[in-house]
Amino acid sequence: MSKQFEVVVIGAGPGGYVAAIRAAQLGLSAACVESESYADPKGEVRLGGTCLNVGCVPSKALLQSSELFDQANHSFVMHGISTEGVKMDVATMVRRKDNIVGQLTQGIKGLFKKNKVTLLSGHGRFVGQENDLWQIEVAGKDGSEIVEAKHVIVATGSKPRHLDGIPVDNKIICDNAGALSFDAVPKRLGVIGAGVIGLELGSVWKRLGSEVTILEALPDFLAAADQAVAKEAWKVFTRKQGLDIQLGARIGKVTVDKKGVTVAYETADEARTLQCDRLIVSVGRVPNTDNLGADNVGLKIDERGRIEVNDHCQTNLPNVWAVGDVVRGPMLAHKGMEEGVMVAERIVGQAGHVNYDAIPWVMYTHPEIAWVGKTEEQLTNEGVEYRAGQIPFAANGRALGQGDTTGFVKVLACARTDRILGVHVIGNNASELIAEAVVAVEFGASSEDLARICHAHPTLSEVMHEAALAVDKRPLHF
Amino acid sequence: MSKQFEVVVIGAGPGGYVAAIRAAQLGLSAACVESESYADPKGEVRLGGTCLNVGCVPSKALLQSSELFDQANHSFVMHGISTEGVKMDVATMVRRKDNIVGQLTQGIKGLFKKNKVTLLSGHGRFVGQENDLWQIEVAGKDGSEIVEAKHVIVATGSKPRHLDGIPVDNKIICDNAGALSFDAVPKRLGVIGAGVIGLELGSVWKRLGSEVTILEALPDFLAAADQAVAKEAWKVFTRKQGLDIQLGARIGKVTVDKKGVTVAYETADEARTLQCDRLIVSVGRVPNTDNLGADNVGLKIDERGRIEVNDHCQTNLPNVWAVGDVVRGPMLAHKGMEEGVMVAERIVGQAGHVNYDAIPWVMYTHPEIAWVGKTEEQLTNEGVEYRAGQIPFAANGRALGQGDTTGFVKVLACARTDRILGVHVIGNNASELIAEAVVAVEFGASSEDLARICHAHPTLSEVMHEAALAVDKRPLHF
Repeated sequence: MSKQFEVVVIGAGPGGYVAAIRAAQLGLSAACVESESYADPKGEVRLGGTCLNVGCVPSKALLQSSELFDQANHSFVMHGISTEGVKMDVATMVRRKDNIVGQLTQGIKGLFKKNKVTLLSGHGRFVGQENDLWQIEVAGKDGSEIVEAKHVIVATGSKPRHLDGIPVDNKIICDNAGALSFDAVPKRLGVIGAGVIGLELGSVWKRLGSEVTILEALPDFLAAADQAVAKEAWKVFTRKQGLDIQLGARIGKVTVDKKGVTVAYETADEARTLQCDRLIVSVGRVPNTDNLGADNVGLKIDERGRIEVNDHCQTNLPNVWAVGDVVRGPMLAHKGMEEGVMVAERIVGQAGHVNYDAIPWVMYTHPEIAWVGKTEEQLTNEGVEYRAGQIPFAANGRALGQGDTTGFVKVLACARTDRILGVHVIGNNASELIAEAVVAVEFGASSEDLARICHAHPTLSEVMHEAALAVDKRPLHF
Repeated sequence: MSKQFEVVVIGAGPGGYVAAIRAAQLGLSAACVESESYADPKGEVRLGGTCLNVGCVPSKALLQSSELFDQANHSFVMHGISTEGVKMDVATMVRRKDNIVGQLTQGIKGLFKKNKVTLLSGHGRFVGQENDLWQIEVAGKDGSEIVEAKHVIVATGSKPRHLDGIPVDNKIICDNAGALSFDAVPKRLGVIGAGVIGLELGSVWKRLGSEVTILEALPDFLAAADQAVAKEAWKVFTRKQGLDIQLGARIGKVTVDKKGVTVAYETADEARTLQCDRLIVSVGRVPNTDNLGADNVGLKIDERGRIEVNDHCQTNLPNVWAVGDVVRGPMLAHKGMEEGVMVAERIVGQAGHVNYDAIPWVMYTHPEIAWVGKTEEQLTNEGVEYRAGQIPFAANGRALGQGDTTGFVKVLACARTDRILGVHVIGNNASELIAEAVVAVEFGASSEDLARICHAHPTLSEVMHEAALAVDKRPLHF
């Protein structure tokens, strides 16, 4: 007889493993299916999905290492620190990153054990339904089996979008996976796509000495961000850090030969060529429903390849749910995790929910960029009247102490009710500073509320405080 | 005729300058009196008080420089970064600190100008009252004048407590002021008092190479902090960082000769001697009412030397207020600032208030320590039943990426209502992480609220999230 579970989760990325753990915590028998795409050298599956294996976590490890290298080369002198012969051993840097990934993926196995989640190694796909039970095939290296589940949560994530005519081999032409494991600093690095991944990885290798050129198809830089933030970022990335970013670049023929990669592209005015040693292709990600067996059961997939779900992540099929990158909404690990929790809780009849208006966005460039809620452009387009308070880090004692005063905080509040509608941060530590803004948004705080909350001195968070005060035109320190 | 103001603030530290700015914003004619104790080389007064001149801000500048030096010596290797001959030029480090202080004190002058606050240079004191107007003498280097004020806000701050028989010359034996401007790294540094200042400055010089011994009179370490935090801090400071901290040390005779300072002290078991090249005395601070003329007008001062005030910072005299270190409550710059805002607003009939239950505490050691609300010990003593959720940074992807996994977050919530009663953080970036906890406390959040708020991945703030989940025994990543 087939194994039976109350819940089978397909995919052990952030959305999936969290859903499985939460389901088990709530007393359900839960299994999580993970394919061997991130198998370790011994062939054992690694949990955590793209995020942990070739995404958020490893990139942050490299960003930290390269940032320290950059500080040693550029910031130490103002502090009075002198050094000689600062060198980066790329192999050590990459090994450290791999160790962190190994530790965390192994950690999820521990969490599965602790929470009594059954791990099923192999590729999972729908094969049918019998007596209210969904049949899922798990095809692994040692054969395949069918397991049965009352509820199925699809959390198959996303995969890098590749472009026709640009063959990714993850050696010379890389997506996020390959770009995290270069064996040396490429002299000339090309990047196609100036999104989060392109900018983060471009920054890593730029700091380590690469000449970096980023080609972006769109005419606007960081179109999803508040445009004041995008402008500041543009200034810092291009002028201060020397990233060469070409907007409105239409990619033509890409050829690889012994001398490297040649990318033909056109900008508004001319046909140009980029010559580089390595090329990163980071032009977005697409939902991953490869060989999921959606057709076998009639699971609806929309025109953009996403599994169709409602606000509660229910698909068109009874007791089949989908969470994370494979459904609508931003492709963010924490959004997937919250959806995983919601679905597990709704399965047992609780009222789990996700507030899609209070999900933070973060880019781990330097300066970091983070926001929650609406941009000025969105509010203007929606015809919402708002007031804005914007304060630079330049006037902040902690920022000065840290020797890093780039950027600002902007708070946007409804002109009528003063409710906070958006908070935008560009600056050192933005990734952590955004947390208080998310809490404020979740509580429906007004800018006045935030302005009346005591902020520790001296901290960067005081800039958030001042920006809230500035909405009412009464900043104390600007 | 004397100059008249609606508000005269005595003291231009954080409580004072903020009160003056806010009063002026509210349409009051406002002056701020500042003595020449922090005069610059040209004899011009420097605003910002202890905090800006010889306290929070300059110490953070040195902490940053010394932390980078420490990283270069100890953390770089794991990232693959090699360096040779890492050296600190103390003069450059101190000059950078001085420049930051200069920039910020000058900045307050700009804020005064922008907000139309009149700066009165000289020592301020009460001389009397006539027709509802308080007479304040301002005695400066160019003579003295009497100004008249409807309202007076006393913001004279605090000064380092000195000990009988230990003559502070701020060269060999220093308080906070001298300890921020050593001209070289002392080989052996003694510190009396293991409070915030002693630990922060002890850390600075330890990182730069001093052998540091800290003598603390109390038998308990960091008695004001949650004791789990104190225990973790003790472990890190003494075992990992090599600070020699002696608890229960009763200080005896202190002598200075050519060879340095000799401190005789007794611990429970024996009489001992500490030999050092520099000695920092950091045994707390006392309210500063020196030559304030309190007796001239009958301003009440309590048995601990503080100006007596009610919850709204009103003294026993009509229209005389006092804020900041010179009144009850924690000696924290941000507490003084909030009191300054409150008083200015109450003067014009608004409802300004300070929520003393939502004031964060921060220590900028490494790891940093920050908290808001009650400790476990306080709750136990008060007989409050609570639930605790504690999560270490060791399991956090960002902390691993940053190579710094020391410490934890602890959330304490009422067992009956789940309302958050205290949040304690020891770890990298605790000073900024605490901000979201303060917002949560201010909104009367439950631990469940915090557990249901989306936290960006990968960030350190996820540990806060997990600690909130752990209150209900359902952490997802631990």
